Amino acid sequence: MTEKYVYFFGEGKTEMKQLLGGKGANLSEMINIGVPVPPGFTITTQTCKEFYENNKTYSDEVKKQVEENLKKLEEKIGKKFGDASNPLLVSVRSGAAVSMPGMMDTVLNLGLNDETVEGLAKKTGNERFALDSYRRFLQMFGDVVLGVRHSLFEKNLQAVKDERGVIFDTDLSVGDLKKIVVRFKQLIKNETGSDFPSDPKTQLWKSIDAVFGSWNNDRAISYRRLNEIKGLIGTAVNIQVMVFGNMGETSGTGVAFTRNPANGENRLYGEYLMNAQGEDVVAGIRTPLPISELEKENPEIYKQFSETMKKLETHYKDMQDIEFTIQEGVLYFLQTRNGKRTTAAAVKIVVDMVKEGLTDKETALMRIEPNQLDQLLHKQLDPIAKNNSKVIARGLPASPGAAVGNAVFSALEAQKSASDGNRAILIRKETSPEDIEGMDAASGILTSTGGMTSHAAVVARGMGKCCIAGCGDINVDEENKQFTTKQGVLIKEGDYITLDGTTGEVIKGEVRVIDPELGEDFETLMTWADEIRKLKVRTNADNPKDSDIARKFGAEGIGLCRTEHMFFDEERIKTVREMILSGNKEGREKALQKIRPMQEGDFYGIFKAMEGYPVTIRLLDPPLHEFLPKEDNDIQELANEMETTTSQLKEVIQDLHEFNPMLGHRGCRLAITYPEIAVMQTQAIIGAALKAQKQGIKVIPEIMIPLVGKVEELVFLEDIIRKTADEIIKESAQSLQYKVGTMIEIPRAALTADQIAEHAEFFSFGTNDLTQMTFGYSRDDAGKFINEYKKVGILEKDPFQTIDQTGVGKLIKMACELGRKKRPNIKLGICGEHGGDPDSIEFCNMVGLSYVSCSPYRVPIARLAAAQAVLKNK
Amino acid sequence: MTEKYVYFFGEGKTEMKQLLGGKGANLSEMINIGVPVPPGFTITTQTCKEFYENNKTYSDEVKKQVEENLKKLEEKIGKKFGDASNPLLVSVRSGAAVSMPGMMDTVLNLGLNDETVEGLAKKTGNERFALDSYRRFLQMFGDVVLGVRHSLFEKNLQAVKDERGVIFDTDLSVGDLKKIVVRFKQLIKNETGSDFPSDPKTQLWKSIDAVFGSWNNDRAISYRRLNEIKGLIGTAVNIQVMVFGNMGETSGTGVAFTRNPANGENRLYGEYLMNAQGEDVVAGIRTPLPISELEKENPEIYKQFSETMKKLETHYKDMQDIEFTIQEGVLYFLQTRNGKRTTAAAVKIVVDMVKEGLTDKETALMRIEPNQLDQLLHKQLDPIAKNNSKVIARGLPASPGAAVGNAVFSALEAQKSASDGNRAILIRKETSPEDIEGMDAASGILTSTGGMTSHAAVVARGMGKCCIAGCGDINVDEENKQFTTKQGVLIKEGDYITLDGTTGEVIKGEVRVIDPELGEDFETLMTWADEIRKLKVRTNADNPKDSDIARKFGAEGIGLCRTEHMFFDEERIKTVREMILSGNKEGREKALQKIRPMQEGDFYGIFKAMEGYPVTIRLLDPPLHEFLPKEDNDIQELANEMETTTSQLKEVIQDLHEFNPMLGHRGCRLAITYPEIAVMQTQAIIGAALKAQKQGIKVIPEIMIPLVGKVEELVFLEDIIRKTADEIIKESAQSLQYKVGTMIEIPRAALTADQIAEHAEFFSFGTNDLTQMTFGYSRDDAGKFINEYKKVGILEKDPFQTIDQTGVGKLIKMACELGRKKRPNIKLGICGEHGGDPDSIEFCNMVGLSYVSCSPYRVPIARLAAAQAVLKNK
Repeated sequence: MTEKYVYFFGEGKTEMKQLLGGKGANLSEMINIGVPVPPGFTITTQTCKEFYENNKTYSDEVKKQVEENLKKLEEKIGKKFGDASNPLLVSVRSGAAVSMPGMMDTVLNLGLNDETVEGLAKKTGNERFALDSYRRFLQMFGDVVLGVRHSLFEKNLQAVKDERGVIFDTDLSVGDLKKIVVRFKQLIKNETGSDFPSDPKTQLWKSIDAVFGSWNNDRAISYRRLNEIKGLIGTAVNIQVMVFGNMGETSGTGVAFTRNPANGENRLYGEYLMNAQGEDVVAGIRTPLPISELEKENPEIYKQFSETMKKLETHYKDMQDIEFTIQEGVLYFLQTRNGKRTTAAAVKIVVDMVKEGLTDKETALMRIEPNQLDQLLHKQLDPIAKNNSKVIARGLPASPGAAVGNAVFSALEAQKSASDGNRAILIRKETSPEDIEGMDAASGILTSTGGMTSHAAVVARGMGKCCIAGCGDINVDEENKQFTTKQGVLIKEGDYITLDGTTGEVIKGEVRVIDPELGEDFETLMTWADEIRKLKVRTNADNPKDSDIARKFGAEGIGLCRTEHMFFDEERIKTVREMILSGNKEGREKALQKIRPMQEGDFYGIFKAMEGYPVTIRLLDPPLHEFLPKEDNDIQELANEMETTTSQLKEVIQDLHEFNPMLGHRGCRLAITYPEIAVMQTQAIIGAALKAQKQGIKVIPEIMIPLVGKVEELVFLEDIIRKTADEIIKESAQSLQYKVGTMIEIPRAALTADQIAEHAEFFSFGTNDLTQMTFGYSRDDAGKFINEYKKVGILEKDPFQTIDQTGVGKLIKMACELGRKKRPNIKLGICGEHGGDPDSIEFCNMVGLSYVSCSPYRVPIARLAAAQAVLKNK
Repeated sequence: MTEKYVYFFGEGKTEMKQLLGGKGANLSEMINIGVPVPPGFTITTQTCKEFYENNKTYSDEVKKQVEENLKKLEEKIGKKFGDASNPLLVSVRSGAAVSMPGMMDTVLNLGLNDETVEGLAKKTGNERFALDSYRRFLQMFGDVVLGVRHSLFEKNLQAVKDERGVIFDTDLSVGDLKKIVVRFKQLIKNETGSDFPSDPKTQLWKSIDAVFGSWNNDRAISYRRLNEIKGLIGTAVNIQVMVFGNMGETSGTGVAFTRNPANGENRLYGEYLMNAQGEDVVAGIRTPLPISELEKENPEIYKQFSETMKKLETHYKDMQDIEFTIQEGVLYFLQTRNGKRTTAAAVKIVVDMVKEGLTDKETALMRIEPNQLDQLLHKQLDPIAKNNSKVIARGLPASPGAAVGNAVFSALEAQKSASDGNRAILIRKETSPEDIEGMDAASGILTSTGGMTSHAAVVARGMGKCCIAGCGDINVDEENKQFTTKQGVLIKEGDYITLDGTTGEVIKGEVRVIDPELGEDFETLMTWADEIRKLKVRTNADNPKDSDIARKFGAEGIGLCRTEHMFFDEERIKTVREMILSGNKEGREKALQKIRPMQEGDFYGIFKAMEGYPVTIRLLDPPLHEFLPKEDNDIQELANEMETTTSQLKEVIQDLHEFNPMLGHRGCRLAITYPEIAVMQTQAIIGAALKAQKQGIKVIPEIMIPLVGKVEELVFLEDIIRKTADEIIKESAQSLQYKVGTMIEIPRAALTADQIAEHAEFFSFGTNDLTQMTFGYSRDDAGKFINEYKKVGILEKDPFQTIDQTGVGKLIKMACELGRKKRPNIKLGICGEHGGDPDSIEFCNMVGLSYVSCSPYRVPIARLAAAQAVLKNK
C-alpha cells in the first residue's frame, strides 16, 4: 500500500497526533466537529523521518501527494497559487506530537511576489495591507528559509523609518513599504548571492525544507532534552490558507481560554485586537482588549465564538487554549490545544468538570501532574514582587517553598536569631547532623555544595522547609560570616536575602511571600485519589510535629523514623559522646541508660501523634564519628568536658575515622559490635509503646534494622531485640504486638531476600543507599559527574530522584519475589527519597509494594501518584 | 533397623570416617589389611550426637552394644575387666572425622584399682610398672574425668620426690609409688568429695562421658572455628586394649613416617625409645633414637615394622604417620594417618608416588593444598634462627615471605636506603599510591592500619614483596621516625627489624633468611596441573619486571595492567598534577601529550615481556585527588612549582575532595568527563602495540574500561577509543587486532550485563569493588567489624579473600549468563584479588570463566587450584 504522506484537513483526527502532530491532528478534528478553520493539509511526521533518512530529499510520492493536495486546496478556496489576479496565500507551520512552542520555524503569507502582491491589493482593495504582508513575508522567508539574519531586515526597516521620521510600522506609507520591499529583496540578493525566489512553488518547497530542517536545530534538540521529550520521529508540516486579521476594522485576532487559567473559574478568558495580526497581540505595542469586550462590540461574532469555545471544551473534555482570527467579519479558529494553567486552577477545573459531568474522576485524577501539587503546599514568592527582584545566584531547588530572612552562617546563630523573634536564612557550605536544631530554627537553608539528596536537602524536605542546595554560584566564608557570588555580590551576616526553593533562585533583599492555601477542591481530589490507589502512603518523620503535619496531609503511618536525629539534641549529644568515648561496655551502658528516658519520651510523642497507625522505627544508623566534633577548638572543648586530653580524644577520633563512611561501620554493624545500643533502643521503643497503650492509645510499633546484608546479621539482632522487648512486655503485664523487620538497602540483601524473609516480618527498601551501592555512586559526591552524564545522555534522570528501574528496580523486583516466596504475607515498603517521586511510585505500585513512605510535604503528591499508578496500569 | 552404635575393630573401614572418626576407621582398616593392632571397638559419632540431644545420657541400646563389645573384647584377649588376677586394661580415646590433635580428652590404663593393680603386677612380674601405671591412671582419670586440676597431682608427686630427694620419676621406688597412689586417691576425695571409683565399668562410662563431653569444650570449639572445621556431628570414642612399651627392655614405643616429612625423601623416618610410654618420647627427658637404630638393635622387629609401613603406605597411597608400641617383643601399631609434611616434601612425595606407580597424577594434584605452594615461592626465615628471636608485634600476614632491614618511616628514606645499597623495611600507618617507589625499594613493608586488601597489601603481593599490614600492636610516629609496640618496645629509624610475612610476626633484630628453591618436582606437578585445568591463568602486572616473573611462573597473559601506578613515577607525577590543575581541556591535553610517550614506553615493555599473550590494560581508575598532595608543606611546594598560590591550590584540592572516594569520580567517570585522558591512553596503548608489532613481536592488546555501570558509559568511551585507535592504526599502515571490553565491578553492571555485552568484547570481574558494593563494605574500613563478624559467626570468611558465592557469586553468575546470551563467545575473566584464591578459583571454574588473573606470585597456586577445580567437579 502506498504510504499516505499528506492529509487534507478533515482526513485526520486527534488520535493521529503521532503522525500528524498535535496542531495538524487538532485542525482536522476541529473541521470534523464543525469548527470554522481555514482549509489546508498536513504533511506527516513520517515524511520528516524519511526526509532525514534520504539525505534531506523527498520521494516522488511525497512530491506527488503535496501537489495533489495543493490543487485540492486551490479548488476548495477558489484561488490559485501564483495567480496574479486571485492569489492563494498560505502559512507553513511546524507541529510535532508534543508541543515545542517557538522551537521550530513558521512562514506566513507564502505565495506573494511582485505580481501576486498587486492581485492581493486589488482583490482586497487595500494596497497598504498587501504591501505590508509582502514585506513581512520577505522578512520571514529571508530569515527562516534563506538564513539572512533577522537584524539585517530590522536595520533596513529602521533606516526607512528614520528617513521618514516615523516611529510605528503603521505610520509607514504605501510608498515607504514599496521602498522597503525593494531593499529587502536587495538585502536577500546581497546576502545569499541569489534573487529572492518569486515562484510560489519554489517558496513552498523551500519553506517545507526549512520546517523539517528546524526539527534538528540546536534549540529544538536542547528543548527536547531539557523537557525529556523522547520517542518522536519528527515534526509534521501544516500548510493552511492564510486569513488576515489586519484587513480593516471588521477584522481582528486574539487568543482565549475556555476557563480562567490562573484560578480555574469557569468563564471565557482571553484578549483580542481588531485590525491586527497575531504578532501584534503579543508585541505589546497596542493594548489588547479583554474578550468580554467582544460581546459588546460584536455580539453576533461573540455568540459564535463562545458557542464554538464551549463545543471545543466539551469535545476535548479539557480546558482549551485557542487562537482565532476574524477576517472581514468571518470568524476562523486557527488552533486549539489543552491550556496551560496554575496548579490551583488545574485542581479547580478538574473537580468542576467532574461536577459538571464533563469528565469522570479517573480522568480528573490523571489530569494533575502530582509534582505540581507542591505549589499548593508551600509558601510562594509574590510573582509581581519577584519580577522586580535581583537574582544573585542559582542552586538546586532542593526543597520547595520560599523564605526570607537575615543571612546567618552557623546553626547557633540561626537558633539565636529565632529566639530573638527574627527570621534567619542559614547559609553553610554543607550542613551536618550537628546543625539540625539550627536548621529547624531557620526559615530557609542555603548550601554551596551537595546535591538533591545531600543532608541539607533531605532534612529540609523532611521539615517542609525551603532549601537551595549545591549553589556553586556562591563562595561561603563561614569564618568571616559572609558569602560572595560569582558576579561579585557580597552578602554579610544580617543582610536580607530571599530564597525560592521551587526554582533554586537566591535573591538579594526581601521579597513578599504568599502563604499556601488548600481549598475544598484539593480535598475532593485527594479523596478521589484515596478511593483508587492501592499503595498506602506513610511518612518519614522523626518527631511529633512532623508526624502531625503528615497526618494532616493524609499519611497512614510512619515508614521511617530515624532515631539518630534525636541523638543530636544539644543536651543529649554530650551523653552520646560519653557513650562513644567509653572504652568499655559498662561505660557505654551507663551512658545509654541516661539516653533511654529521653528516647522513650520521643517515641511516646510519636506514637501518640500516629495513634492507630504503624510506626516503623529504625535503629541507630550513622557511623559514630558523625557524633564527634571535627574542628580543633570543638575537640578541645569536648576534651575538657570529658576530662581527657585533646591528644587522647584526637586519637579516638582518628581511630573512628573512615575512608568511605557510607560503606563503613554503621547501620546494624554498630548494633552488632555494640549490642547495648540495640538493647537501649528496644527498651525505649517498647517502653514508650507500653506507656501509650496503657493510656488507651493504639500503638503499632515496627522495629527496623538498617543495613542488613546477610541474614545472620538480622538473626543476631532479632534475637537481642525480641529478648529485650519480651522481657519489658512481661514486666508490664500488658500484651503488645510488635514487628521486627529490616531495611533492604544493600544489594546483597536484595540478592538473598529469601533467606532474609525467613526472619524479617517486613522489608523496607532504602532506595537511597540501594542506589548508591548498585550504581557505585556516593550521593554526596556524584554531583561532580551526574550533570555531565545527563548532558551527554548517559543518564536520563538522576537515579537518586527517580528509581532506576533497569538496575536498582531489578534488585527490588528480585527481592520482592524472593521475599514473598518465603513469606507470602510479608509487608513491603519503601522509605528512600524515591517514596515521594511519582515515577518511582508507579514502579512501587507495579511491583506490588504495600506502601510508600515520603517526607510529610510529599504525602499528597504520593497519594495522587499512587492513584495514577493504578489508573495507568488498568 | 536398630542403629549400630558400636563397631568392633575390623567391622569398619577408612571410608566410614564420618561415623567412626579418623582414628577408629583407620584402626578397623588396619586390622582388615593385617596390620597388628591391639583389639578394641569404636562408639560412633552418631552416639555423640544423640548424647547431646538426650541431655548427656545414653539410650539403652547404646549401653547394650557397649557391653556386648566389651564382652567380645574380653573373650578375644582372654582377660576380664576388674579381674584381679588377669585384668583387662583399656585406653579410651576420642577421634573425630577430622583430626583435632590435643583438643579432646584421652584416658589410659583404665581398669586399674587397688585389686587389679596387684594382678597386673603379678601377671607382668613387674610391681613397679604396675604401680606406675596405676598412678598415671589416677592422675589422668582424676584430671580428665573428675576435673581435679593437673597441677595438684604434680604438686603431690613433687612432694614425694622432694621427700625422697630424687629428680626423675624413674628414680621413685615401689614404696614411693604406693605412697603416691594413696595421696592421689586422697586428693581426689578431697577435691571431688567422693572416693575414686574403683569399679572399672564405672571408670569406663565416666571416661566415655568425658570424651564425648570434651567435644564441646572451649578449646575444641575454638579449634574448629579457627580451622574452619564444619559439618561434623561429634567425636567417636575408641576403647582399645592397652599395650605397654614400658614393660622392660624388650618393650618400647615410637612414632614414624613412611617418608621424610621435611624433604620428602623415600626412606623411613622416625624415632623410638625402649622401655618407655608414648608420653616419654615427646617429653624430651630421654633422647629418642632414630628409627634406623631399631634395625641394628632388633632386625626382626624392624623387618616386620618396615614391611608393615610399606603395606600401610601402599594401602593408603599416601605418606603415613604412625604410632607403634613393642610390648615384650611383640609389635603393635596404635595409629596411622596421613602424615603432615612441608610443602617441598609434599611436592616431592606426590611426584615420586606417581613415578612409583603408587598413585595417579590426579590424586597427586589433589594432595597439594594450593596455598601451600606460597612457601616455595618466597624467602623464608631460617626456622632455627627464628626460634631464638623476639616477636614484638603481630599483624596481618598480608604478603608472604620474609624480610630483614633497617626501619625507615618514609618512602623517600626507603629509596635513599636502597640506593645506598642497604635493605630497608618501610613502616607506615598506611601506604598510599605516592609511596609506590619507596615500596618497590624496600625489602619489606609494615603498616599499622588497613586490612588484607589495603593498598599496602595489594601492592606488596603484586610485587611479591613481604608485607605485614594492619599491625595494630604498633603505634607509628612518622614525625619522629619511630614506633612503639604495645609491650613498650621502641624501634627507631635505622634499627634492624625482621618481618615474617607468612605469619604476620614482627621481630626485633636480624634473623637469617633462606632463599626459595623451585625444583624439578615442582615443575612436573605444574605441568600435570596445566594438562587438566580449563581456566587460563593470567597475571596482574603493571610493568615488564612483574610480567617477566609471572611468565616464569606460567602466566598466560596479563588480566589487569593498572595504568595509574605509572602515573606516580616521580618524574611523571608533576605532569599528571599539571594536567589535573589545568582549568581547561587544552591545558589537560598539553600535559597529557607529555605523559603519552612515557606511557607508550611502559606499554611497549609490557607487550614485549608478554609476547604472544593477551595484555589487558585498564584505563585510569583512581579519583584525581589521589594524585595531589595532602600535607600542608607538600601543597606549598607544589604551589611553588605550579606557580600558583597555596590557597588557590588548596581550593582545587578541596573541590576534588570526596566523602566516599570509593563511590566517587573515578573509573570511566573520569574518562567521560575528561575524554582526553582516554584518548591519550588509547594512543599510548595502540602506539606501543604497533611499535612492538613492527619489530615482529606478537601483541594482543585488550583495552579495558573500568567501573562501567550503564551500557551508555561503555558506548560513549568505546566510540572514542575505536576512533582514536583506528586512526593511529591507519596512519601506521599496519593492521592490528585489539579488543575493547569492560570491568564488571558495579552491581548494576552485573544486573544489566546483557545490555553491556552488546558492546563489550570481554568482561573482567573486578571482584574487589564488586564485593565492596554488593556488601556495602569499604575494604579500607571493614576491618573494624569484619573480625567481630567472624567471631560471632556472621561471616565465615572474609569476603575480600574468598568470593561470597551466595551474594556476589549470584551477581557473577547472572552476569555470565546474561553476557553469554547476548554474545555467546564473550571472554570472561576475573582480575580481583580473588583470582588467586583457590576457593574462588573453584567458583570461577564452575561458572565457566575463561581465565583468572592474579598477582605474579600466586600464578602457580592458581594453576594448581584451577586443575583441582576440574578434578573436584568431575
